[in-house]
Amino acid sequence: MKLQVAMDLLSVDDALSLLSRVAEYVDVIELGTPLIKQEGLSAVTKIKHAYPDKIVFADMKTMDAGELEAEMAFKAGADYMTVLGVAGDSTIAGAVKAAKKHGKTVVADIIGVKDKAARVKELKALGVGLVELHAGLDEQAESGYTIDSLLAAGKGADIPFSIAGGINVDRIGQVEDAGAAIAVAGAAIYGAKDPAAAAKALRDKIRNHG
Amino acid sequence: MKLQVAMDLLSVDDALSLLSRVAEYVDVIELGTPLIKQEGLSAVTKIKHAYPDKIVFADMKTMDAGELEAEMAFKAGADYMTVLGVAGDSTIAGAVKAAKKHGKTVVADIIGVKDKAARVKELKALGVGLVELHAGLDEQAESGYTIDSLLAAGKGADIPFSIAGGINVDRIGQVEDAGAAIAVAGAAIYGAKDPAAAAKALRDKIRNHG
Repeated sequence: MKLQVAMDLLSVDDALSLLSRVAEYVDVIELGTPLIKQEGLSAVTKIKHAYPDKIVFADMKTMDAGELEAEMAFKAGADYMTVLGVAGDSTIAGAVKAAKKHGKTVVADIIGVKDKAARVKELKALGVGLVELHAGLDEQAESGYTIDSLLAAGKGADIPFSIAGGINVDRIGQVEDAGAAIAVAGAAIYGAKDPAAAAKALRDKIRNHG
Repeated sequence: MKLQVAMDLLSVDDALSLLSRVAEYVDVIELGTPLIKQEGLSAVTKIKHAYPDKIVFADMKTMDAGELEAEMAFKAGADYMTVLGVAGDSTIAGAVKAAKKHGKTVVADIIGVKDKAARVKELKALGVGLVELHAGLDEQAESGYTIDSLLAAGKGADIPFSIAGGINVDRIGQVEDAGAAIAVAGAAIYGAKDPAAAAKALRDKIRNHG
């Protein structure tokens, strides 16, 4: 399993500052949707330039104009870009077309998808490379939220998947047990008093890395 | 009914160039999602600065972190910002909270919503100011697409709504007949050989303007 840091920060400077402390412990660097909207895709270019050997993940959350938005993200330097699982099939197919052209990867974010198991099968057939089983920041803040439904959806998935939704050192073991290809940590790293120590602790909990 | 120009362009320079020709005929200036992602929210600031008397519409298509993304858009100078109707209720409520604080408007884009009539009622209850009945660029490109289902959804809506999905001079009369508060034209303006003439022709077709 790989470790991904999701940077829900609002400036490239803050992102680069965080990465200077945590990059050595992570495999995938995610620029969050608010960061991309605030700064534009030049943020992706700057971070890929600073960390060319890392997988750079642009959380575009594309809902329309799939081929165009995927082209934009890959041209900017992203290795992975996200489309929304709730988007129409033609939007997802358009993004996959751009990914094949560039030799890159489309990740389908299933945030907001009601029947996760059924949609994951369709997304696989549409050619996405990875499914992100994701509870958003707003959903995580709702009372009664747990990671269990994401873990359950992962156990039935027939495609590589990541899990994102409040992963910390106590939960990352369950995520690996569920078979995730990537564990995504956000606030557990960027919100920690010592982000480097937090990232290292998460990394050290992964039993089979890679 | 008001006229909105949707700018599915990828640079502020191109957007300002288009606006220099068409702004006098439109009420609402929309920065498309790809433009915001490419250039960042400074694009909104630049266009609001150039056209302070127009309603500036930031098509954020927010799916998560509703309060944060709405704050970002309004702080950048947007008068209207969009959340996705398929987003969770807490995301939409967060955006509405930010809109009330700033005295601005949240528009819910119903792209991808299956049961439009039911969701429109819920969106009204959540406090959005306007519902955008919207077929995306990818959906418009599918065979068999017509604007009829959007017009039908509008006729049953109990909240101000806009319609976006391939409006041209032949269709704008139907949009006004359906009771839309705003007609959104994209390619019919920016894709025209003479965008100024195209915008003026659309504007002239509106019988009751305002």
